[in-house]
Amino acid sequence: MSKHYKVAIIGAGAAGIGMGCLLSQFNWNDFIILEQETIGNSFLHWPEYTRFITPSFTTNGFGFPDLNAIVPDTSPAYTFGKEHLSGKEYATYLKGVATYYELPIKEHSQVTLIKSQPTFYVIKTDQTTYTANYVVMATGEYGYPHMADIQGNHLARHYSDIQNIDQLQGHHFNVIGGNESAIDLATNLYLNGKEVNIYTDHTGLDSHVPDPSINLAPITKEHWQRANRYRQNIPVYTNHQLKFIDKTQETYRLTFTNGEQITSATPPLLATGFEPIIKRQFYHLFDFMPNGKPLLTAQDESTCAKNIFVIGPSVQHNQVILCYIYKFRQRFLPIIETIAQREKYPLNPKIISWYQQNAMAMNELDPCCVNCHC
Amino acid sequence: MSKHYKVAIIGAGAAGIGMGCLLSQFNWNDFIILEQETIGNSFLHWPEYTRFITPSFTTNGFGFPDLNAIVPDTSPAYTFGKEHLSGKEYATYLKGVATYYELPIKEHSQVTLIKSQPTFYVIKTDQTTYTANYVVMATGEYGYPHMADIQGNHLARHYSDIQNIDQLQGHHFNVIGGNESAIDLATNLYLNGKEVNIYTDHTGLDSHVPDPSINLAPITKEHWQRANRYRQNIPVYTNHQLKFIDKTQETYRLTFTNGEQITSATPPLLATGFEPIIKRQFYHLFDFMPNGKPLLTAQDESTCAKNIFVIGPSVQHNQVILCYIYKFRQRFLPIIETIAQREKYPLNPKIISWYQQNAMAMNELDPCCVNCHC
Repeated sequence: MSKHYKVAIIGAGAAGIGMGCLLSQFNWNDFIILEQETIGNSFLHWPEYTRFITPSFTTNGFGFPDLNAIVPDTSPAYTFGKEHLSGKEYATYLKGVATYYELPIKEHSQVTLIKSQPTFYVIKTDQTTYTANYVVMATGEYGYPHMADIQGNHLARHYSDIQNIDQLQGHHFNVIGGNESAIDLATNLYLNGKEVNIYTDHTGLDSHVPDPSINLAPITKEHWQRANRYRQNIPVYTNHQLKFIDKTQETYRLTFTNGEQITSATPPLLATGFEPIIKRQFYHLFDFMPNGKPLLTAQDESTCAKNIFVIGPSVQHNQVILCYIYKFRQRFLPIIETIAQREKYPLNPKIISWYQQNAMAMNELDPCCVNCHC
Repeated sequence: MSKHYKVAIIGAGAAGIGMGCLLSQFNWNDFIILEQETIGNSFLHWPEYTRFITPSFTTNGFGFPDLNAIVPDTSPAYTFGKEHLSGKEYATYLKGVATYYELPIKEHSQVTLIKSQPTFYVIKTDQTTYTANYVVMATGEYGYPHMADIQGNHLARHYSDIQNIDQLQGHHFNVIGGNESAIDLATNLYLNGKEVNIYTDHTGLDSHVPDPSINLAPITKEHWQRANRYRQNIPVYTNHQLKFIDKTQETYRLTFTNGEQITSATPPLLATGFEPIIKRQFYHLFDFMPNGKPLLTAQDESTCAKNIFVIGPSVQHNQVILCYIYKFRQRFLPIIETIAQREKYPLNPKIISWYQQNAMAMNELDPCCVNCHC
């Protein structure tokens, strides 16, 4: 017989662990977290040189915990004494938090199928089968590189595959993309003595929108400035959307939608972002918006599968893009409140008000919330 | 006749400008800001190499504006595209905000005397005389180096006097102090090829308290790590409180309270922090705690002069130390609410709730608010 839980959380990353910690604080222990590899798996697979773009600082206690904290009384800045953690460091932080809250996590349990039954879901992993009344998808995006529209993309290398700049053979590289990962990769290559061109449809470098989900993070801009001071400016070709890659002998040819073509001795490096993993693995449980994000109710529930919720960077409501930890951690509580209401489970009001005091309880989705006059 | 205002704010730094912006948003325009030099004066006098230790990031819109913002819809990270601003950059940010909110600021107006009358205060500046019913002291600490207990301190140089490392003649330096400014100065000297010893009673390097008002900021720890990787570790001599400095010919002699003595060819560099400017200039209006901070009511009002308030880094209530912008900006609103209540001035509830939503309305002073499990 398969083991049954009230709630199954899929993924033990920042979102899944954060959600589990809050359930645990409510003493609502009838849940399981299923993780395909180990805690913080995506972070462990980050390139060596990648760092958090959100700076950690122990603001805890004054209404807004450390930007990268997933529980109010924790702080990666406190744990590591630094602002911009590596993926490995953040995975260590997540493990520490999971241990402190004694979370029930099944590692090495890859979910292969989620099937709807009248009042519950069947969740098959490569190890065993579970059932649960509620499923919270916290699978993130990192494992699913966005490269769908580029023909011949098997000839390219994606940002997430480049563990180390030194692995790359060649001197001159073409980076495809104009946002965080593209600028990160290009500046790292450049500062390591390589020649780089950037080809992109548009770039956050030109943005004047204050929301860092659209604009670039300050640290990325700083790295960009530093790289460009280092030698000469890195060329950025906007209005260049890559359409087609082919290869003849040792030469890669890139064709853009504007008709232009370039050739290169090195494969193009795609820093074109990521897509929600649920779109690859659990597409039957969701409708998707044209931008690839799941269509969700105001409660972050799937519009086509009741009692299935999404938490993490893929959640977007109109202009509210929750692709940062300090944003999506504010939705742990609303989802739990929705489930608790349906289950008539009493939630400790002290915990609720503690999360509210720490700006981790975003109940209203203000349609236009990031403004800066100066 | 002297010009009368309901409220006079002394100082056009982060605290004074932030306070003025909130009064302005309430359309409560019967106030003046008196600034001895120009807007952001202290920041303009920072050493060239000094940077903010709190990282700016455009978290605006999600419950906690940029750590260094003084009004919710502004962000130094947005203005400058960087995390750690210089003093000059921050002064530019303050000027931008003051212009946007059209604040009534009198620059080059040094307050020389504040005198109590039965229902108002007389405020003399070197230019003219004002009267006001309420006085908000926003004079900060930067201009008042803490060095009182060290005899012969005229032979030393203070952190705030060292505009540029290159100015310093000599190769081997003794830095006195163990917190932010001491570590900042020592690492900068060291990375510029100088030899440095640190002498201090105790140091934030050893602290395990999460509150950054006691512990060191992450960026300071990172600089410390980097400096110590660079050559060999910078020696730190704790339990060395400097008591006495004297000089014979070209040799400085430092005597510590533990009886030890050292000699040096260079003057000791005091990075022993700052004291509230009100303690030097307006001591008659306040009682002071043993640590030099003003004794204040729960409304941040002087315990010995009614209608005189303090805002900024000198405010401390038990364990709540408001010496960061992201902390003290939360007290603009409570002070204005106190004054409004006394004056029966109606405050727009929309502005109040906007400040509340942005964690800029700390009404309760939780006696122990900075905890981190991990």
